[in-house]
Amino acid sequence: MIYLDNSATTKPYKEVLDSFVKVSEDFFGNPSSLHKIGGQAEKLLQQARSQVGKLLNVKETEILFTSGGTESNNLAVKGIAMAHRERGRHIITTSIEHASIHNAMVQLESLGYEITYVKPDGNGFISVESIQKEMRDDTILVSVIHVNNEIGTIQPIKEIGTLLKKYPKAFFHVDFVQGVGKVPLNFYEAGIHLSTISGHKFHGLKGTGALFIKEGVRLSPLFSGGNQEWKQRSGTENVAGMVAMAKALRMTFEQSEKLNQMEAAMERLRSGISQIKEITIHTPMENRAPHILNFSIKGLKAETFVHALEERNIYVSTTSACSSKKKAASKTLLAMGVPQDEAESAIRVSLTYSNTIEEAEIATKAIVETVKHLSEVVKK
Amino acid sequence: MIYLDNSATTKPYKEVLDSFVKVSEDFFGNPSSLHKIGGQAEKLLQQARSQVGKLLNVKETEILFTSGGTESNNLAVKGIAMAHRERGRHIITTSIEHASIHNAMVQLESLGYEITYVKPDGNGFISVESIQKEMRDDTILVSVIHVNNEIGTIQPIKEIGTLLKKYPKAFFHVDFVQGVGKVPLNFYEAGIHLSTISGHKFHGLKGTGALFIKEGVRLSPLFSGGNQEWKQRSGTENVAGMVAMAKALRMTFEQSEKLNQMEAAMERLRSGISQIKEITIHTPMENRAPHILNFSIKGLKAETFVHALEERNIYVSTTSACSSKKKAASKTLLAMGVPQDEAESAIRVSLTYSNTIEEAEIATKAIVETVKHLSEVVKK
Ligand SMILES: Cc1ncc(COP(=O)(O)O)c(C=O)c1O
Ligand SMILES: Cc1ncc(COP(=O)(O)O)c(C=O)c1O
Repeated sequence: MIYLDNSATTKPYKEVLDSFVKVSEDFFGNPSSLHKIGGQAEKLLQQARSQVGKLLNVKETEILFTSGGTESNNLAVKGIAMAHRERGRHIITTSIEHASIHNAMVQLESLGYEITYVKPDGNGFISVESIQKEMRDDTILVSVIHVNNEIGTIQPIKEIGTLLKKYPKAFFHVDFVQGVGKVPLNFYEAGIHLSTISGHKFHGLKGTGALFIKEGVRLSPLFSGGNQEWKQRSGTENVAGMVAMAKALRMTFEQSEKLNQMEAAMERLRSGISQIKEITIHTPMENRAPHILNFSIKGLKAETFVHALEERNIYVSTTSACSSKKKAASKTLLAMGVPQDEAESAIRVSLTYSNTIEEAEIATKAIVETVKHLSEVVKK
Repeated sequence: MIYLDNSATTKPYKEVLDSFVKVSEDFFGNPSSLHKIGGQAEKLLQQARSQVGKLLNVKETEILFTSGGTESNNLAVKGIAMAHRERGRHIITTSIEHASIHNAMVQLESLGYEITYVKPDGNGFISVESIQKEMRDDTILVSVIHVNNEIGTIQPIKEIGTLLKKYPKAFFHVDFVQGVGKVPLNFYEAGIHLSTISGHKFHGLKGTGALFIKEGVRLSPLFSGGNQEWKQRSGTENVAGMVAMAKALRMTFEQSEKLNQMEAAMERLRSGISQIKEITIHTPMENRAPHILNFSIKGLKAETFVHALEERNIYVSTTSACSSKKKAASKTLLAMGVPQDEAESAIRVSLTYSNTIEEAEIATKAIVETVKHLSEVVKK
């Protein structure tokens, strides 16, 4: 199997699962319990938090554990909107966010907030100027994706953060789900107040995530209750899941020594695919993540192509996983001005550190042959 | 180790962890992915949903997967409040709910909802009449706990549900977290629209839960995004966690053949403890769950007692886990009219099916000796 859908989800590292099992069996206590079975669990949770904080270069008290990227994004956006609604009700985001940001914004619109969706240029980039133009006195939040999950463009987060320092009323949230462990980002330097990561995107477990919340930033919780996680996210903590996520993050950072290999594999794919005349590559050459490649195949349905490659035991995806069932066109491509039919025939290949050059070669050959074969079938 | 804090959390069954690992390793796909790695994960998720539905005697399409009891409770309460706010803003609940209901209500108050907190009688029971008295034309939700997590009383859910059938504008939510697998409840018969369960309370994994949502009931989601779970709970599904929860639920139902053993163990504890003159038992004899016993020890701090028992490798708790760190008095006991000092010295013993009569005997002896010893120390 050649699995090239790592932006949808990754396979958990063996060691990560081992830790999960160990903690679940031997340290199953409720961290809130007074006795030592609880105390041991609490200590492990705190260690996991400290590890994640260190790896992301922030304080451990700035790491809030959640059930995943979708929760973290919703908590950031709705939590800020609800807590600071007396200060203003204008929010700026982009038209190339993940659905968990986009649809949270749509929900806020129905509650009386005003949302500005900034558009990217033809290459999928959001300019600092386009954000600046929309800043208002009542803007309370700017939320921008770091690495776009559909085409892999990296947004100028640090530049936007620098701009926002001039607007102390506005918080800055960054969806870091696709970037973490692959494209470095310093939260403090970039003036970020909130940032989202998701465990299952870096070989951790599904149902685990975190939200960086800069010291002093106040949120309205989505989950009220027993007041865990500084009252910002109640609920019995998934201790084993968080220990597993911390381990996955550490291992992913260690794997980054294989960045050259991943880049070479991507280069092999890109140069091979670009030879095919039916293919248009959407991922730009500059300012893009090393692991995502998006392209359209003229005259072919994306779904047909995914299934044809699957016959060869190669797994790629049509746009983002959560839109793929709906067979919707890629939102990011449409926002970039790519024509509807092309946006509907988009394919995403996404790598991780363990993908080899050899796999890239096999996949490239398979893609070339499949395009050729399917195009002939279609023409008949 | 004699672990008698099963209402705080339980140890996952070995088989549950095995399933979790198997699914995480061999079926790690994103259920939303089009290819077969995704399809396999989706199928497992659907099987888990169908299993949970069958065990709870409801349709599988009425089972929504979440990250735990706190999420399910918040989603139920806030989801109904937000979705139906044009219909009315009055909500009825009780003063003996878990913090995840209580604090969700407090949050709704700050958003302009009016909440009525119905008080229990001196034994910890909510009467149907006390609910009826508060019903209004603009009441949109009634939320009542099934088995109280602090003292184990069972509320007259079916009777309340029957009453509510006369009020078609009001939804009925029941926190079933402590009851599931121990005290039967038929959602349909009881006229319930929404009901919460939490995996880690029945030997499943932390970070897993479900919300029963009766067909046709509409909620505002807490997590918007990729529109998983019928758009009511977006986010990449924790497939392995849900398979594990379904298995834990099935195994727990199977374990209920050991109900007699658990009842005998509880009887042993209760009769032994009731001999101690310093002890007042708060859990009534009738209409109580088989696994929870709550009592106060005159003149002793609950915390001191928990730690003293811990020295003998016996684990019990002070009130609910999430309040125990705050050393707050038991909310349920205070609502029942128990004096402050007694409510502050409350101890909760909570069993599961694997607890034996022998364990109960050892624990009873230890409790008797510890009370005696500590009381002497205090008197000195
Ligand atoms: C950029 C981005 N943000 C957020 C998410 C949501 O994370 P999760 O799958 O953990 O809900 C995803 C993946 O689905 C993503 O790619
Ligand atoms: C009655 C009750 N409801 C809700 C919860 C919350 O569930 P969870 O621990 O899964 O967040 C608990 C336990 O903490 C509980 O006892």
